[in-house]
Amino acid sequence: MTSTQRPVRITDVAALAGVSPGTVSKALNNTGSLKDSTRERIRAAADKLGFVPDPDARWLASRRSYTVGLLSVDAAGRFSIPVMLGAENALAAGEMSALLATSRYDAVREAYYLKTFTNRRVDGIIVTGRTIDPRPPVAVDIPVVYAFAPSQDPDDASVIPDDADGTTKIIEHLLSRGRTRIAHVGGRPHKHASEVRAGTAAAVLAEHDLELVTPPLHGDWSEEWGRRAVDQLLQQLGSAPGRDDLGVDAIMCGSDQLARGVTDRLRELSIAVPEQIAVTGFDNWDVMALSSRPPLTTIDLRLSDLGRRAAEMLLDAIAGNPHHGVEYTPMELVVRSST
Amino acid sequence: MTSTQRPVRITDVAALAGVSPGTVSKALNNTGSLKDSTRERIRAAADKLGFVPDPDARWLASRRSYTVGLLSVDAAGRFSIPVMLGAENALAAGEMSALLATSRYDAVREAYYLKTFTNRRVDGIIVTGRTIDPRPPVAVDIPVVYAFAPSQDPDDASVIPDDADGTTKIIEHLLSRGRTRIAHVGGRPHKHASEVRAGTAAAVLAEHDLELVTPPLHGDWSEEWGRRAVDQLLQQLGSAPGRDDLGVDAIMCGSDQLARGVTDRLRELSIAVPEQIAVTGFDNWDVMALSSRPPLTTIDLRLSDLGRRAAEMLLDAIAGNPHHGVEYTPMELVVRSST
Repeated sequence: MTSTQRPVRITDVAALAGVSPGTVSKALNNTGSLKDSTRERIRAAADKLGFVPDPDARWLASRRSYTVGLLSVDAAGRFSIPVMLGAENALAAGEMSALLATSRYDAVREAYYLKTFTNRRVDGIIVTGRTIDPRPPVAVDIPVVYAFAPSQDPDDASVIPDDADGTTKIIEHLLSRGRTRIAHVGGRPHKHASEVRAGTAAAVLAEHDLELVTPPLHGDWSEEWGRRAVDQLLQQLGSAPGRDDLGVDAIMCGSDQLARGVTDRLRELSIAVPEQIAVTGFDNWDVMALSSRPPLTTIDLRLSDLGRRAAEMLLDAIAGNPHHGVEYTPMELVVRSST
Repeated sequence: MTSTQRPVRITDVAALAGVSPGTVSKALNNTGSLKDSTRERIRAAADKLGFVPDPDARWLASRRSYTVGLLSVDAAGRFSIPVMLGAENALAAGEMSALLATSRYDAVREAYYLKTFTNRRVDGIIVTGRTIDPRPPVAVDIPVVYAFAPSQDPDDASVIPDDADGTTKIIEHLLSRGRTRIAHVGGRPHKHASEVRAGTAAAVLAEHDLELVTPPLHGDWSEEWGRRAVDQLLQQLGSAPGRDDLGVDAIMCGSDQLARGVTDRLRELSIAVPEQIAVTGFDNWDVMALSSRPPLTTIDLRLSDLGRRAAEMLLDAIAGNPHHGVEYTPMELVVRSST
């Protein structure tokens, strides 16, 4: 039924089936005592006309629940919550409701929730994660889309933020600002995001016949590591605060938290940001990016868009057109005064 | 049915009703063609034995959906998300599922979601908010509990964090550390939380024949205001960095963000924390409280407990025992090195 057509009414179904509207109601709601043949005839008439009396009857007719399960592993959820809310928003626009479940990294709890989703006959499931490291697939026989954390099974449908895109945008922004001696301070090594960001930074610089001024400096995701990394960087460069030539004119950080630690330490060393060293963050986490002195140029992960895309992919799969493999969503450069 | 009893089987119902198991299935699932009297007899037998074939049939029998709606106004959700996850966790333990909806401060969207919840026959609704300022009640005829943001209707059931309890714990902690010259740096004035915290601080001090060293300093909730407030405080006290007697030995801040700004500024002024001035936060927001130098003594709002309590109150209401009025949940003192 398109929006330009008059809605099909119960009286239309009654007229086509040759019964009263009350009998139509009984047949579609499975109440009262009717012959099987009468019930079948009324159902056929309702199907032919596309009659949808209410969500429950709609479910009875289609065996669809118009409900989707949102499974998050993460109770804190700085990354998964925006994804889930973006997905929920897109689902609601399609008149689908979202069941919430948080497994808290507990496999038993995850299995329990998957069973609950199945019992409730959800039409599909969106699984979110805390990092973009691939995760084991869930074992259900309904459509699933993995958002943020991709499935280890390449045949599954996954959507993750495009770290290579974000890193390229940051490096090209620094180059456009005339910076050519760029260092990289990252978080934990051997994480997928860390490897993509460090690798992409080197690759984009190589296209311009440049390279990072030192190998990437990896630690953890804390401000404290950002502060220490500044001293480590200057030491590796044989440099020191107060010199005219510091040996570095930009520091690309792997998160806003790291960048905040870096700007704090540069401030303590009386090294001017961005005049002497430009600093960039990653995540556009407002509390870090805006409170930094100066506020940070950074990359917004567009997690709400990612959640919306996951919902679209799930709706496609529910409609019989599943996606396969990993899809990447673009990131957005946000320019502030740290560059 | 308790866990020590054998589960009731469909054959038990069939035996009691004097029909075949297949007829029981037809009757309870509203399929096939049966006389009304037969259907009634089978339903009565199933009810008497407490037979629960599956969640859908259970719903058909009880007219309950075993689903609760979680309505959040807030898409960012630093406060509402922990409340909702605490509620979801408690509901899942009771085999209730949680439908998620985020109205994003939009009254039209809120009305749409309430209608969706009603169409889906949720058993009740938990409404969360972004601040503890009272909000208008929602117009539905099923049980509702307001979590974090209370209802303006005193007859409704609301549960909010006990700011007076948290403030009392902070002031008594500072007194136990020998601090008697306490200042208060708050966020936005005329907010319910700001008024309760400032008022409680003064009242607890009065019990010890003390008062705040200046009237409460209010601004906004930013680090930047926290930094400026330090200078404003010293000026009002006719004090200055470097003096032996600063005129203040503790600053109780209205949030961790404010406290972080305060410690940053004290550090810049070479005033030692906590030796010269102890500093306390509020919220126990890890990224602020742990990254502060030194890490902050603060108050944890226990929002997950609050969500759990809201779920319990809602389950009581669904079971026919509604709560009325505002219930307060206690806060927890978290001691770190800033005091």
